Amino acid sequence: MSGLRRLGAATGLVLAALGLPALDRGPLPSESLRTASDLRDRVAEGSKAADWVREITDRAGPRLAGSPGDRAAVAVTLEMLRSLGFSNVRAEKVTVPVWSRVSESGEVTAPVSLRLALTALGGSIATPADGLEAEVVRVPSFDELEKRRDAVRGRIVFYDVPTERTRDGSGYGKAVVYRSDGASRAAALGAVGVLVRSIGTDDNRLPHTGDLSYKDGAPRIPAAAVSIPDADLLAHLLASAVPVRVRFALDCGRRPDAESANVIGEIPGRERPEEIVVLGAHLDSWDLGRGAIDDGAGCGIVIEAARQVAALRERPRRTLRVVLYANEENGLAGGKAYAAAHVNELARHAAALEADSGTGRPIGISWNAGPAAEPLFAQIAALLAALDAGGLEAGGEGGADISPLVLGGVPVVGLLQDHTTYFDFHHTANDTFDKIVPKDLDRATAAAAVAAWCLAEAPSLPARVPPDKRKLPW
Amino acid sequence: MSGLRRLGAATGLVLAALGLPALDRGPLPSESLRTASDLRDRVAEGSKAADWVREITDRAGPRLAGSPGDRAAVAVTLEMLRSLGFSNVRAEKVTVPVWSRVSESGEVTAPVSLRLALTALGGSIATPADGLEAEVVRVPSFDELEKRRDAVRGRIVFYDVPTERTRDGSGYGKAVVYRSDGASRAAALGAVGVLVRSIGTDDNRLPHTGDLSYKDGAPRIPAAAVSIPDADLLAHLLASAVPVRVRFALDCGRRPDAESANVIGEIPGRERPEEIVVLGAHLDSWDLGRGAIDDGAGCGIVIEAARQVAALRERPRRTLRVVLYANEENGLAGGKAYAAAHVNELARHAAALEADSGTGRPIGISWNAGPAAEPLFAQIAALLAALDAGGLEAGGEGGADISPLVLGGVPVVGLLQDHTTYFDFHHTANDTFDKIVPKDLDRATAAAAVAAWCLAEAPSLPARVPPDKRKLPW
Repeated sequence: MSGLRRLGAATGLVLAALGLPALDRGPLPSESLRTASDLRDRVAEGSKAADWVREITDRAGPRLAGSPGDRAAVAVTLEMLRSLGFSNVRAEKVTVPVWSRVSESGEVTAPVSLRLALTALGGSIATPADGLEAEVVRVPSFDELEKRRDAVRGRIVFYDVPTERTRDGSGYGKAVVYRSDGASRAAALGAVGVLVRSIGTDDNRLPHTGDLSYKDGAPRIPAAAVSIPDADLLAHLLASAVPVRVRFALDCGRRPDAESANVIGEIPGRERPEEIVVLGAHLDSWDLGRGAIDDGAGCGIVIEAARQVAALRERPRRTLRVVLYANEENGLAGGKAYAAAHVNELARHAAALEADSGTGRPIGISWNAGPAAEPLFAQIAALLAALDAGGLEAGGEGGADISPLVLGGVPVVGLLQDHTTYFDFHHTANDTFDKIVPKDLDRATAAAAVAAWCLAEAPSLPARVPPDKRKLPW
Repeated sequence: MSGLRRLGAATGLVLAALGLPALDRGPLPSESLRTASDLRDRVAEGSKAADWVREITDRAGPRLAGSPGDRAAVAVTLEMLRSLGFSNVRAEKVTVPVWSRVSESGEVTAPVSLRLALTALGGSIATPADGLEAEVVRVPSFDELEKRRDAVRGRIVFYDVPTERTRDGSGYGKAVVYRSDGASRAAALGAVGVLVRSIGTDDNRLPHTGDLSYKDGAPRIPAAAVSIPDADLLAHLLASAVPVRVRFALDCGRRPDAESANVIGEIPGRERPEEIVVLGAHLDSWDLGRGAIDDGAGCGIVIEAARQVAALRERPRRTLRVVLYANEENGLAGGKAYAAAHVNELARHAAALEADSGTGRPIGISWNAGPAAEPLFAQIAALLAALDAGGLEAGGEGGADISPLVLGGVPVVGLLQDHTTYFDFHHTANDTFDKIVPKDLDRATAAAAVAAWCLAEAPSLPARVPPDKRKLPW
């Protein structure tokens, strides 16, 4: 999950529940709409999406790019797609960066001695073997960091910014910049280490990892997330006058690049098989949990959505291509590699949809395409209104993995889901299969299946993203 | 918390909300009742109970008997009681058993490779340094263990018994026998190790520790609790035909006994200071969290209840003696030592009340005394009805720490609290200060203060526990 940050942070996006009139004004004829609504109702009533999530999480487990679990996930999903009858099932090689965690620990050393639940941020360098100890300076914002720049040198900066619980996930976007940019901003002022209040909405002693981004020009310093109860503790201790000191030890770091793969399977179109609708999710996950909500759920959604469309009496005009991307979490190598490998095919990509928002109920779709495509997306939204998922958001990147396709003008669609509990588990050890809510996942799968059907069946290709909007969001 | 197991498991206990008529039929005159209801309302409106919990958890942290945190907790609470103006503040030495945890890890090794979140049960012996690996046999009950006795030899027994979420905490009593007795029962049949589904009601990957009890006559084998999501995973894997193997490594064990203390402070009685009402809670905690709900909360409740009674215009007839017991969790050395050290004083113990049920709202009291004391307890319950805490349960031990006092005939009173969420956090790393709900804790403190006042002010000593009922529950 990284697309959401940008989507949610964008302003002026409106979720509009659309009424039935929109159904009549789009390119899809009534027979296609009838097929779509039958599909929607059937899938929403019960699907196998959760079964696919279970298989990935139980058989591969955590699967950070280049890890043994990542390799297992490629094997498991290749076998799965083949056994489900997908065509052209294949692994397209991707070279991925590798980072791994060996051990981590931390504690307050003054004015009291208390263990902290913390975890290295992805990409962090290691501390010295016996740890890093310094006085802690708490900052509630980058503004405050700048104001207190003289107090930072030689210290550990503690970014203490709560993540707001929201339905659309926008709370994440506001807080995650401290995780991604905090280390370099503090290092530029002479800090020796960084602690970040976990970007999450729970109250468990399970810290939230996630990627950081070291900037050129600033020293690289170790950075860890502390669990929310431990962040509360630090804040409380720091509210007294005494200096608070923390020691933390991280054994982690970059390793040589490794080979992974985008796993691909297709449902060939009946009429224009060379035109492609990508249904994307990412196969990799963070290492602490088992990647059930992030993004086993998305894999289950797109695999099952395609399987359900394939089970229709008649397949749609265009080909559905399920792409389970490598390395979304810490590099986006899979998304970039797919765009590069298929650059000559992009003109024939009708659209790409990504599911990377967990197990939450669907609430709508976002779309980024030429304005002429709006009636098609309005039809899709009108079909989804029966799932209380009729929201239609213009803009966005669709999802991190598919975002590079925008450069080729490919219309991108994001499956919007209820994020209310998503950040309770996201990037923690708690991201395990038991967090999947099959009923909600079925509804999200129904929404994805409807969108896939409509995009693959529309009489003509949706209008391309206009050249002036073909920008990478990252 | 161990008293609850027995309380909750007892049958036929009735929570009866009593009406006002009970107020007129007890030994306390209307003036005392007025004082009690004013006290109740004032404390329920806001107290400092949570502040004391915070001080203990922030300054001492986890405090398993004999650990550095345990020593810190003795120092912190001695200082606290002195600064709050308690009299006769002292530490009464207690020799405690010491068990400690160094490291632990585990994973499924077949048919897949998945890390497990597990934790050694308190008292467990260590595994060999490179761990213990064997096939796992799941049993949902001791009956099933017996039926499958031929399948157990050389294997790891996995007790998979869910803990029911209940308001009165009775779900714990039904499940905890697998934690306490499971190792020896499996070992007697030749098992080499034990895994227990965490005795808890959450869905976090934070396993619940707690004491086991090795029985004479059975070999001692290592035992660990797995988190509830990991127990679900094991059960799911075991539901297929394939053998499931687990490896786990525990570095933990008994160490030489150490010195700890019961921390005591008093509010001297105005008329019969030699007569004593004990207000008990336990100062020790498990090592994974910071002992906020178990039993920092109880310490906060009894300290604040006594402080609030002391702040009345007139102190009660008898002395209130706050006792913060050592080593409740894994030995009960504090409770036994208190009873032994004060054996000649027990006839002058009017009653003992214990608070060891977390931060939940009060729901009533339990009492074990001579039948003639019932009108007094009915008056107390009637006073608590205004807090929706008018439940009156006959029987029980009051609390684990005070249970030895029953041998001397001392009436014991348990503060009953809402346990709905208690076992989400109990004995886990999640037992931290943020789980305290100050408003609920204030109400529990109000209930304890009312009971303390009434017991210390009643014109005559409550009727003693009849000789035929002076039995230890353990």
